[in-house]
Amino acid sequence: MGADSGFECIVDGGLDAARRVGDGIRVVFVGRSSDIEKALSAREDVPENISIHHADDVIPMHLSATDGVRLRNSSVAQGLRLVKEGKADAFVSPGNTGAVMATALLTLGRIEGVSRPAITAQFPTSTGRPTVVLDVGANADCRPQHLSQFAVMGSVYSSIVSRIDYPRVGLVSIGEERGKGNDLILEAQRLLKKSKINFVGNIEGRDILSGKIDVAITDGFTGNILLKFAESIKPMLVKSMQRQIQTNIFSRVGAMLLLPFLKRMRNTFDYAESGGAPLLGVNGIVVICHGSSNARAITNAIVVAYEMATKRIKERIHDELITNHFGHNNGSQDKSEDNRHGIVYTASSDDQRRL
Amino acid sequence: MGADSGFECIVDGGLDAARRVGDGIRVVFVGRSSDIEKALSAREDVPENISIHHADDVIPMHLSATDGVRLRNSSVAQGLRLVKEGKADAFVSPGNTGAVMATALLTLGRIEGVSRPAITAQFPTSTGRPTVVLDVGANADCRPQHLSQFAVMGSVYSSIVSRIDYPRVGLVSIGEERGKGNDLILEAQRLLKKSKINFVGNIEGRDILSGKIDVAITDGFTGNILLKFAESIKPMLVKSMQRQIQTNIFSRVGAMLLLPFLKRMRNTFDYAESGGAPLLGVNGIVVICHGSSNARAITNAIVVAYEMATKRIKERIHDELITNHFGHNNGSQDKSEDNRHGIVYTASSDDQRRL
Repeated sequence: MGADSGFECIVDGGLDAARRVGDGIRVVFVGRSSDIEKALSAREDVPENISIHHADDVIPMHLSATDGVRLRNSSVAQGLRLVKEGKADAFVSPGNTGAVMATALLTLGRIEGVSRPAITAQFPTSTGRPTVVLDVGANADCRPQHLSQFAVMGSVYSSIVSRIDYPRVGLVSIGEERGKGNDLILEAQRLLKKSKINFVGNIEGRDILSGKIDVAITDGFTGNILLKFAESIKPMLVKSMQRQIQTNIFSRVGAMLLLPFLKRMRNTFDYAESGGAPLLGVNGIVVICHGSSNARAITNAIVVAYEMATKRIKERIHDELITNHFGHNNGSQDKSEDNRHGIVYTASSDDQRRL
Repeated sequence: MGADSGFECIVDGGLDAARRVGDGIRVVFVGRSSDIEKALSAREDVPENISIHHADDVIPMHLSATDGVRLRNSSVAQGLRLVKEGKADAFVSPGNTGAVMATALLTLGRIEGVSRPAITAQFPTSTGRPTVVLDVGANADCRPQHLSQFAVMGSVYSSIVSRIDYPRVGLVSIGEERGKGNDLILEAQRLLKKSKINFVGNIEGRDILSGKIDVAITDGFTGNILLKFAESIKPMLVKSMQRQIQTNIFSRVGAMLLLPFLKRMRNTFDYAESGGAPLLGVNGIVVICHGSSNARAITNAIVVAYEMATKRIKERIHDELITNHFGHNNGSQDKSEDNRHGIVYTASSDDQRRL
């Protein structure tokens, strides 16, 4: 209900997903039922496999995560409760990112063995297969075991979205050699080398878009800066082109012909378009979309969420953590320390609008 | 002598710089004098304001920084010694980056008050005026006072290359609000707020290319990942375009017409092309170029080094550090601690070739 783009296109996206997946899915619209019913009655060919779940409140985009969590009858809180109660398998939201994250963590908790959930984005590569990057903003400060858990979660997610068996996982650092990087990297590298993950070693910034790896592991500080930087490339190119267009007719024609390409490039850098950004590690499937998502972005996100549910991503993450001895013991000292930190959504209110 | 592109085009770049700046400059070619003399005798219109300084050895690109430093008669060591002895004002090198950095620090030391020298790159913006970004790779782990010193050094450098009086300085973080970021950012923010620098506050990844600020401050870990990521954008776009070119004639024509634009974009992301990457903070002017620099890149770097010398960048950095109380006391406890860390060049041997 709180999306910048309005709920009308969310309804369209949901209907398209219901049509595309067919009998295997039921799309539940959570929000003010009168509004949703009105929107549905204005549409033709409404499929059977949809329903409505009423929620009174809407979390405004400008609200802080802390205040957003308190609205217990918001569409976000109600949708996540459906997942908690087993009435839904996944929750997709283009709402206030901070509030979605905080409410998801409070309502669903974490997968057993996960210390910190992570926001996960897809970056485009020249091969056409995306690089999965995490964490892109949930955790500003990370410890080595967090990075090794991200590697497990990212590996499972990549195997689902890219349909590959053994995704190549790289640790983002400043040199490919062992011994390069800061203390966090060196210790995380040691953990990952012992794991059963397809860990290819350290990678550099240039390898993220190259297609050399499938999963790039980074702390949420560096990852968020990279994501925002990547999202700004297209606007910069377009503005530079506009300046160039004034110089001569050849580049003007070139730029005009290339706009569709640039548009597609932006789409691939825009994780909402490429299936949203899952919050991996919470005990339930949660996919965050940009507040400005169009119908197609919502459809894509729902289809990815459906894939994650049918491929049992939660159980696979849990099993892989155990196989790799990466899960923290939820009864131990370590847990209380991790809980003390908890998840701290670190983006600004501006992000909450944009994400 | 050790450049991948060979010393012939370095000679051409030096001659062009001597012609372009004219009487104000003398370009000294440091290396095997017989080779350089031979190259010069093959050229026409050799200007008067050049000379040759002989050096026996060449540091190969694949050599580690530690081994490179030991070659005391290398062109790098000899060139830096000229600066140390006051016989040259600046040293420009497309050689082994790690060896140049280590030798520069050993030979020249640091500007009084500087804890850590920083590699400084220019990123393109849509306004045409670059964003100066530092550190992009000299220091993997930074402390708040290092970042505040980078802000002073970057501010002085930006005022020289962009010819502005009061550059806007931003601290790269994950949210614009105060209170966002990790511990390092929060403490650096506190220091910068007290300073006389034109500190605009935290910026996000998306602001680096926007032209909203003139100087972006970051630790060498995040900065190096960003730089490498930025350098990889053009190859990714070109490869994606090549795939697209196969799809239809319109995008084929568009892509072909746009290649000059992309070429220029790469040049602006390539800090060698935009005047090289100065190692700010060492007690002398040192500009590092890509090993594959062409003549134009070398000319640009020499011209920027000349500007830095005539605008007395060393003295200005020193004065600004004192004005802002940012310099560490070189006689204090703090110094010994900083010396213990020293400068640690963090890039791989592959970087040493590429940088």
